[in-house]
Amino acid sequence: MSSSEGEPQLPNRTSEIRKDTVFGRWVVFSPARSRRPSDFKSKNPNLTSNHPTSCPFCIGRESECAPEIFRVPPSTPDWTIRVIENLYPALRRDLNPPDSGSDQAVGACRVTGFGFHDVVIETPYHPITLSDLEPQAVGEVLLVYVERVQQLKALGTLKYVQVFKNHGAAAGASMIHSHSQIMGIPVIPPSVTTRLSCMKEIFDSTGKCSICDLQSDQNLMINSSTHFYAIAPFAASYAFEIWIVPREHSSYFHELDRAKAMDLGGLLKLMLQKLAKQLNNPPFNFVIHTAPIDLSPSCVPYSHWFLQIVPHLGTVAGFELGTGCYINPIFPEDAAKVLRELDG
Amino acid sequence: MSSSEGEPQLPNRTSEIRKDTVFGRWVVFSPARSRRPSDFKSKNPNLTSNHPTSCPFCIGRESECAPEIFRVPPSTPDWTIRVIENLYPALRRDLNPPDSGSDQAVGACRVTGFGFHDVVIETPYHPITLSDLEPQAVGEVLLVYVERVQQLKALGTLKYVQVFKNHGAAAGASMIHSHSQIMGIPVIPPSVTTRLSCMKEIFDSTGKCSICDLQSDQNLMINSSTHFYAIAPFAASYAFEIWIVPREHSSYFHELDRAKAMDLGGLLKLMLQKLAKQLNNPPFNFVIHTAPIDLSPSCVPYSHWFLQIVPHLGTVAGFELGTGCYINPIFPEDAAKVLRELDG
Repeated sequence: MSSSEGEPQLPNRTSEIRKDTVFGRWVVFSPARSRRPSDFKSKNPNLTSNHPTSCPFCIGRESECAPEIFRVPPSTPDWTIRVIENLYPALRRDLNPPDSGSDQAVGACRVTGFGFHDVVIETPYHPITLSDLEPQAVGEVLLVYVERVQQLKALGTLKYVQVFKNHGAAAGASMIHSHSQIMGIPVIPPSVTTRLSCMKEIFDSTGKCSICDLQSDQNLMINSSTHFYAIAPFAASYAFEIWIVPREHSSYFHELDRAKAMDLGGLLKLMLQKLAKQLNNPPFNFVIHTAPIDLSPSCVPYSHWFLQIVPHLGTVAGFELGTGCYINPIFPEDAAKVLRELDG
Repeated sequence: MSSSEGEPQLPNRTSEIRKDTVFGRWVVFSPARSRRPSDFKSKNPNLTSNHPTSCPFCIGRESECAPEIFRVPPSTPDWTIRVIENLYPALRRDLNPPDSGSDQAVGACRVTGFGFHDVVIETPYHPITLSDLEPQAVGEVLLVYVERVQQLKALGTLKYVQVFKNHGAAAGASMIHSHSQIMGIPVIPPSVTTRLSCMKEIFDSTGKCSICDLQSDQNLMINSSTHFYAIAPFAASYAFEIWIVPREHSSYFHELDRAKAMDLGGLLKLMLQKLAKQLNNPPFNFVIHTAPIDLSPSCVPYSHWFLQIVPHLGTVAGFELGTGCYINPIFPEDAAKVLRELDG
């Protein structure tokens, strides 16, 4: 008997096109090919690796890494988290920052590849993944992100800081040892501009922050905690995409305090566990969408940070490349129901 | 002796951030990790497959496919190209079209999944790929695209038609037999809106079409033909990305005539052959970027169609997901030189 026998089928739905309120994206929901929740299991799961003898992210091998920025706790060989420079940085801290205003330039434009590209080693131990950590240890990783973002902000040369995690080779991770990355960027990235202008348009016409408004749809709710909730977004671009959103309106991730970080740590761990269980330990990315460093006070009412988790289940192909539209084979209300009813 | 010994190294360059004039995207050029052209070879090449007994796209098995729309030549069992419905369409022709104007709606929005999703079978023979065909046979495939786009336009219910090809499983192809796809979409896709508004901004400030302007940089030129040229774009998002551009200003792909289609067939074949040779037969996508069906006459001066080819060499990961910026490990002037000097 196959493991999916007896599993309930997904509701029978007709193709639909939805537009979201955050990125202004159109997404095609096309459920024709998939009928059971287990049809979505990853065919490319991450396997637990044996401890290699050559991982520079492991405790005791610190001298093989690029320079350390800080560790937690400080000044001890028994660290739990380290922030280091990336050995192969995409942006380089040793170049001159570009002139301010270059991201407003019309037409072709080039600036130096100045910026910061750091790595957060989330655990000293090779076989441990982020979701294996205790909720408060996940919270400590989030507080390390906050500290590093605040340091980069204080430099005065950057426009945006992107925090992200690639888990699994198919999701872009070149190291197996659990880590995330922080990039300080000297221009405002296109997705950030698009997101803020989409949210401004909605704010101007409704008087509401479109992220604050998300918690009203109970069909999309997965789980919640004291300060956060996790939803499948109404126009999710990807199958089983999850957003974790602060309940209280808040523009900047880096203003997260200790109590909220601990609370978020628990909900993030639960969501990663649920994805691993439901989808056969898939490769995934998560990214933190926050506000540009110099946010105009007039943008604060519609700028609201959140964390987006995307399991890698399909391929971005020609249609997405041409149109910027995504095709999602599962409706978010069905994905939310499957994840809501699953024990972590 | 390894095959790359004796191969010239790529020039030593420093990281740079570039903005393009068509999509307004910032791209990070970060050459740190790659030193030789052969470092980019696909680790996931397409292998020539044996002829299976079960491919419904093969000649003689037409009854196993979804309904045919037309074939070339018409009314003969010895067809060379067939256009059929997709058996698993992302959009459905049997639904009602959405109200016009829905793509202008502010806020969350849903419309029916009305639309067309067709497949172009490019050859009756299973082992043949598009670049194996003679130049004029590639040209005939392009003319089939033109004919189908004109049919979809005439329906009056669609806003945009996306022509694309996924080659190889890693590039999203679910069938091995050489084919491409055509989707008729009832809303204007976000990439199209962004592209036209970026090109408008440049036209308004310079009086020039930014695509017409591309041919001025000889360092980016790969090859050219009577009516087209192939370049590595100045701010290519992807390693070894190629654009094939009509020399003469032209808004609509579907106005391509027979002489130009034959000319383009030769250049497209040459570019696909060069990518296969240089990059170890990588999976790839190509997409045709054209104008929306109802283009306002005021947009004609800055709307210029082109064909984009993207080999799948890396992974789109957390950084790209968060920022919409891409990281490209090879400068386009270096990719252009490698491809220019390569025999097809």
